[in-house]
Order: sequence, then structure tokens, then C-alpha cells
Amino acid sequence: MLTIEMITQAAERLKDVAIQTPLLESPLLNNALGFRLLIKPECLQKTGSFKIRGAYNKIASLDETQRKAGVVAYSSGNHAQGVAAAASAMGVAAKIVMPSDAPRIKLDNTAHWGGEVITYDRQAGDRAEIARNIAEKTGATLVPPYDDYHLMAGQGTAGLEIAEQLDALGIQADRVICPVGGGGLIAGVSTAMLASQAETEIWAAEPCNFDDTKRSLEARTALSIEPGHSSICDSIVTARPGRLTFPINLKTLSGGYSVNEPDVVTAMRVLFTELKVVAEPGGAVSVAAAWSNKEAFQGQTIVALVSGGNVDMDSFLGWMI
Amino acid sequence: MLTIEMITQAAERLKDVAIQTPLLESPLLNNALGFRLLIKPECLQKTGSFKIRGAYNKIASLDETQRKAGVVAYSSGNHAQGVAAAASAMGVAAKIVMPSDAPRIKLDNTAHWGGEVITYDRQAGDRAEIARNIAEKTGATLVPPYDDYHLMAGQGTAGLEIAEQLDALGIQADRVICPVGGGGLIAGVSTAMLASQAETEIWAAEPCNFDDTKRSLEARTALSIEPGHSSICDSIVTARPGRLTFPINLKTLSGGYSVNEPDVVTAMRVLFTELKVVAEPGGAVSVAAAWSNKEAFQGQTIVALVSGGNVDMDSFLGWMI
Repeated sequence: MLTIEMITQAAERLKDVAIQTPLLESPLLNNALGFRLLIKPECLQKTGSFKIRGAYNKIASLDETQRKAGVVAYSSGNHAQGVAAAASAMGVAAKIVMPSDAPRIKLDNTAHWGGEVITYDRQAGDRAEIARNIAEKTGATLVPPYDDYHLMAGQGTAGLEIAEQLDALGIQADRVICPVGGGGLIAGVSTAMLASQAETEIWAAEPCNFDDTKRSLEARTALSIEPGHSSICDSIVTARPGRLTFPINLKTLSGGYSVNEPDVVTAMRVLFTELKVVAEPGGAVSVAAAWSNKEAFQGQTIVALVSGGNVDMDSFLGWMI
Repeated sequence: MLTIEMITQAAERLKDVAIQTPLLESPLLNNALGFRLLIKPECLQKTGSFKIRGAYNKIASLDETQRKAGVVAYSSGNHAQGVAAAASAMGVAAKIVMPSDAPRIKLDNTAHWGGEVITYDRQAGDRAEIARNIAEKTGATLVPPYDDYHLMAGQGTAGLEIAEQLDALGIQADRVICPVGGGGLIAGVSTAMLASQAETEIWAAEPCNFDDTKRSLEARTALSIEPGHSSICDSIVTARPGRLTFPINLKTLSGGYSVNEPDVVTAMRVLFTELKVVAEPGGAVSVAAAWSNKEAFQGQTIVALVSGGNVDMDSFLGWMI
């Protein structure tokens, strides 16, 4: 189960580890939009995404014996860096299973964080199975990307901060919009937000063709998206909601937004020019959802969580030119 | 005079107006550099630079009659937006004198903030004189870009935040490096920092050919730089230290760094890729100074204040390609 107490405990653990990212806004942009847009920029977090919050809380919840046996994770991106950095901060050995054709920078960064990178052939191997095998053989604990309550509690600390920061501003938000891949971040964020601000609606944002959570919420049952699509939003292209995250999200979320790629690029541009933050495509889908629903949001206060900023300069330049 | 009490009072006034920007760091970048680099990203501040802090504190210090008569300022950039936004937040009329050939976006933004833009011919007019004339004729108060104690006190709140944030992390900085144009920001920041962390050295960062403060500190007297140079660091290309700021800075600063343009571009790139923030060239000179003095800083803790992020996408792309 995921409780607000678990999230509060995670916040205590993360106090000197995670950066408390601010709530940013541009009154000029607000005027142009016709609603108040507050940005929670988790792209500014250590490792460039919120992932260190959950990974650290998960590893901190292990006992001495478990920590000695190390942890193992599979990811080609932000979760890999989050786990490697969190493990390194606690002196725990981390093995990270990554596809051999992952971008050099991601392999290198994971190794630089102190993670032992184990590559596999994307065509031949199943990374989850490889990670489970390592866990069984070595006694290491698997740190899954979203289907874990300690992990969700850690990600939820971002929501706790949003609630506290809104309180400090003396305002309530009409909606909080959050990028969704497997649904771990939004499960934590929605649980944290609704504990103190029950009137606020929490909405998922996903790339079109990967809007499995939106469709599943509408059908009130977990659905998979049909295969064969691609997206620039590489960090959140999951095929179906998580086994543990979806039952939570079905209770806490008001619905989902599906956004197209031109709006994602516009959102990255607006974040650059108006808020001065760098977002990766998957991190900017929340702002893309706000941008493309301007008419519906007139007069409201919207919080958009930007989940990551791990985009390489060349790709960014390519989208902006 | 500028006192720590004035800065503390300014912080109280700015509590619900300015964003408390975080201290950001990337442990990966720290490892690569060999020293701990903490970034104070004032580019994330409302209006895209620290300038709203000083402008708001200055206008808040005016009495009812003065506020009714409005304020006037001259600037082609960040100060214009800071004054317009601060005045608008307090319902005070603001006239901003700007060159008629200023970038459209800056003229537009200043107007959008509610400022009345008064343009002049850069070849024929003296903007300071035009502003003074308006002040005399209308009774409006001139809000100068740096030579004013209330203004410096407002800018100093960024330094107060740095001191508090270092305290919260349980660390002291060896150096704080701060971009310098007229010297108002660093006068406030150094006064605030040294009040609680007297061992920390405060250093100015300037573009080469506009390193008047560095040279003046070395000569122990205010010197002007020779005319005829240009720089991409448009927000801090002042010719000589301020009349009121320099005597303060002569007491509080340990020295200055002069940085070249390739290092400024590198700093902007590092801020983008490693810290996920957008800096304008003049805002990134502090990071350029840290970058180009890597060897001397080994093992130290360095805070680099990034003063602004008002760069247009096309210019940014041009530098990064």
C-alpha cells in the first residue's frame, strides 16, 4: 500500500539528498495564456530527473544485509541514473542492465555515478528477466522503475513539496498535470497532493499513441496500447499502466491528456524562452497539455510538473531550428 | 549606506514577490571539475533576472506621494523589465527609456509588464539625461540601474538566500563568484554573505575588455575601460564601476576574474546540459570564471550566481551550433 505517512517518511530521508525544486512562473506567460501556470521543474533535480527521489527512498528502506547484497535495475535512461546515484550516495553497489545500443552518454553517465553497467542485446534479451536473474543469483534487490510502493513514496515527495509551496503562496491549484510513463510518479504525487488539497484534480499527460493510462482511466481497466508506434518522448513510452500503480491512479486521477509532438516541441520552447529551464520531450508533456488546453483552463491555476531535462544538445537544436 | 539590516528588510518585502531560487548542483559535474560547484540560478527569477529584487525594494521604500508620481528608469534590458514588473506589482506607473533600436522582444516585454516605453535615438540622445528630465518634469522617482542603496539591498537578498541555503546544507563556500556590470548585485550579495560567512571570498566575474571592476580593484581606484570593444555579454558591458557601488565592493571583494567569449559559450553549454538551466552570456560569466580556473579551485566549494537567462532562441542556437 502507498500512504501519505510513507511519503512523509521519504521526505525526511531525502532532506539532504534531493534538491527542493522551486515553483516557477512567469507573470508575462500567465497573461498570454489566460491562466496561472506554475512549473515544478524536476529537470533541475540531481541526475536531471525526479528518479533519484524514489530510488533513494527504496534503497534507504532496505536493511543492512540487503544493502550489502547490492541493488539491480534495468533502464535505458533516467531511472538508471537515479538508481546509480542513489546507491552511490549510500555506498550500496548497483548493477544497471542497459541495452548495448543505448546512447553513449547514458551508458557513460550511469557508470560515472558508480553503477556497474551490464549491457544486453536489445533484439535477443529481455532486460527485466536479465535483472531478475541477477537479483536471484546475487541476492541483490531489484529496484523496479515504478511498480514498488517505496519507490512511489519517494517520487511522491515532489507532490508533497508542491502542496507545501502552494500553501506558502496561499493558493490552491485547480489541476496538477504530471507526465506519465508507468505511473509511479503520478501515483506518489497524487497521493501526496490529495492528502492536503483534496479539491485539486490530478491529471496525467502522455504522448499520443502512448496514452495507455488515459485510455485505461476512461475504460476503468488497464489497457495496453497497440505496438508499432514511436515517439520523441523516449522517457515515457510505456505500453501499459503498472500493476501496482494503476489501481492507485484509478482512485486518485481525474483523467488524462494526450499530446502531439508539435505541442511537445512548443512546450520545450516555451520552457526555454519563458521559464529558462531545459526539458526533455517526455518531461514537457505536462506543459504541452496545458498549452493545448488553453481555452478550457482560462482563469485557473495549473501546476505542471516537468519530470526531466536529460536531452542532448544536438537533439534539442534539431527540434528548435 | 548599505547595511545587512536593509537587506533583511528587503527580504521581508520580497517574500511573496521574488522566487526563492534554489542552489543547484550536479555531483557528476562536480566530479568532472574536481570541485563542488553550486549554482544560484537567478535566471529562474521572475522577469528572467535578479533585477526585480532591487527594483521592487526601491519602489517599496517610496512613500505614498512618491509612488503616486510614478517611477522612471533607463535600460535596454533586464533592469527595464525588473522595474516595469516591480512597479506593476505595486500599482505604480513606470516610464522606461529605451533605445528605439532595442530588440523588439525587449520593447514588447517591457510594455507587456505594464511599463510605458519611451524610445530615443541612441546616436542623438543620452538616456540617463532623458530619464532625469522626465523625473524632474513629472516628479517621478528615478530608479537607477545600480547606484542606489535600496536597489543594492534588494539585489543582496539573493546573497542572503545563498547564505541560508549553504547553512541548510551545513557547508561553507570558499568563494562566491558573481557577474558584475555596474556592481549593484555583487555589492548586495557580498554584504549579505559576509555578514554571516566572513571567511568566504567574494569575486567579480566580467567579460574581457569590460573588466573595469577587476582592474579597479587591483588599482584600488575606479578606472574606466578604453572604449571601442564589443561583447556577447550585453547585459554587463559597463565602462566603469558605480560611484556608490565601488567603495562597497573595494571593501568586500577579494578580486575579479576576466573571462573570454569561448569560455562564456562553454559555460552556457554546461549550464544547459548539466544543470538544465538557460543562461544569457552575461549571466554565465561566473560559471565561465569557475570553468577557466578549474586548477586553482580543486577541492573547493564554489557558488556561481547566474544572474539572468534572457537570451533569444536564435542567438542561443547560433552560439551552440
